[in-house]
Amino acid sequence: MIKTEPRLQELMTRLRVLPGVGLRTAQRMALHLLTASHRNDAHELAQALQSALDSIGNCRLCRMLTEDDVCTWCRSEERAEPAQICVVENYGDALAIEQTNYQGRYFVLQGCLSPLEGITPKDLGIDLFIQRVQEGGFKEVILATNLTVEGETTAHYLREQLAGMQLKISRIAQGVPMGGELGYMDGPTLGLALLDRRDCSH
Amino acid sequence: MIKTEPRLQELMTRLRVLPGVGLRTAQRMALHLLTASHRNDAHELAQALQSALDSIGNCRLCRMLTEDDVCTWCRSEERAEPAQICVVENYGDALAIEQTNYQGRYFVLQGCLSPLEGITPKDLGIDLFIQRVQEGGFKEVILATNLTVEGETTAHYLREQLAGMQLKISRIAQGVPMGGELGYMDGPTLGLALLDRRDCSH
Repeated sequence: MIKTEPRLQELMTRLRVLPGVGLRTAQRMALHLLTASHRNDAHELAQALQSALDSIGNCRLCRMLTEDDVCTWCRSEERAEPAQICVVENYGDALAIEQTNYQGRYFVLQGCLSPLEGITPKDLGIDLFIQRVQEGGFKEVILATNLTVEGETTAHYLREQLAGMQLKISRIAQGVPMGGELGYMDGPTLGLALLDRRDCSH
Repeated sequence: MIKTEPRLQELMTRLRVLPGVGLRTAQRMALHLLTASHRNDAHELAQALQSALDSIGNCRLCRMLTEDDVCTWCRSEERAEPAQICVVENYGDALAIEQTNYQGRYFVLQGCLSPLEGITPKDLGIDLFIQRVQEGGFKEVILATNLTVEGETTAHYLREQLAGMQLKISRIAQGVPMGGELGYMDGPTLGLALLDRRDCSH
């Protein structure tokens, strides 16, 4: 039966774009969504996804998700440390850091340097980042890429790009275990890692 | 930031309709789908879901998912046991049974009786099922609802509804599963397995 319903097959395939969803889970999800009692919810999910894709873009300044031209984090006048900018790999990492009372700005790379996957500085908007740092009047750049090999490589590359500019460059402390991903750290650990950031400008 | 993007909030909420997806996973999925490199896939997912909802309905005869009026399982002339009909709670159960070379027809209840959740015989299309059995010329009804309290209750109810009709009614066997170790089986299961022991003397 299932094999003869192309659109059901298609849905199962597409569901696998979701993180951590394999063949088995995708099938379970598809059958769940098409059950009579869940169809309204499923319809609203499709609408919500389409509407989010249509209306949510990236902040012109920090590449964070926003429905506007510039995100509220970049616009906000209330943030106590507007001269700090924290570079993270993805949205989730920024959200995790925001939980730690960090009061500066952000820049979201949307990934990290990876020659294997062909991810270049251009893909990470690093030129945009450098420009942002130059024009934003920042005094400190906090490198908060993951403590993975790619994250460290990216941080190292950013440090090189920022060399010679009149600002403090810091890296989150090694309070975060090697291989750990910021999105999954608990607040206290992450807060401590920010607190213990070490100066690496010289 | 996130809190100020209503459509992102909406997407996170809607993603929770997926089975086994909680707040944390929903957020992770939403951010993943909106990342630049995944937007095409996300768009295709939204399309696939909408298209499936629009085109896939229930088989008029067995309530299985199909794009047609009657599903291929009900239409098929090749099935060796067209006089058997197997009643299951949901699509996934039918798919699981189909893996076992079962050659009869199916009927999908899309749930099981649950006074607490207000699920009535009407919701399960049991009237449709009785009609199907009467008109389908079946010789055996196999009750394959889950071995849970609700499943057993539903099976019991179906048995009552079928009483007096000229056909064999059977229930899938309960016992120790393949590879099961007796030492780890619960008492009731083991007791029933002993009670339902089958003669293998010849």
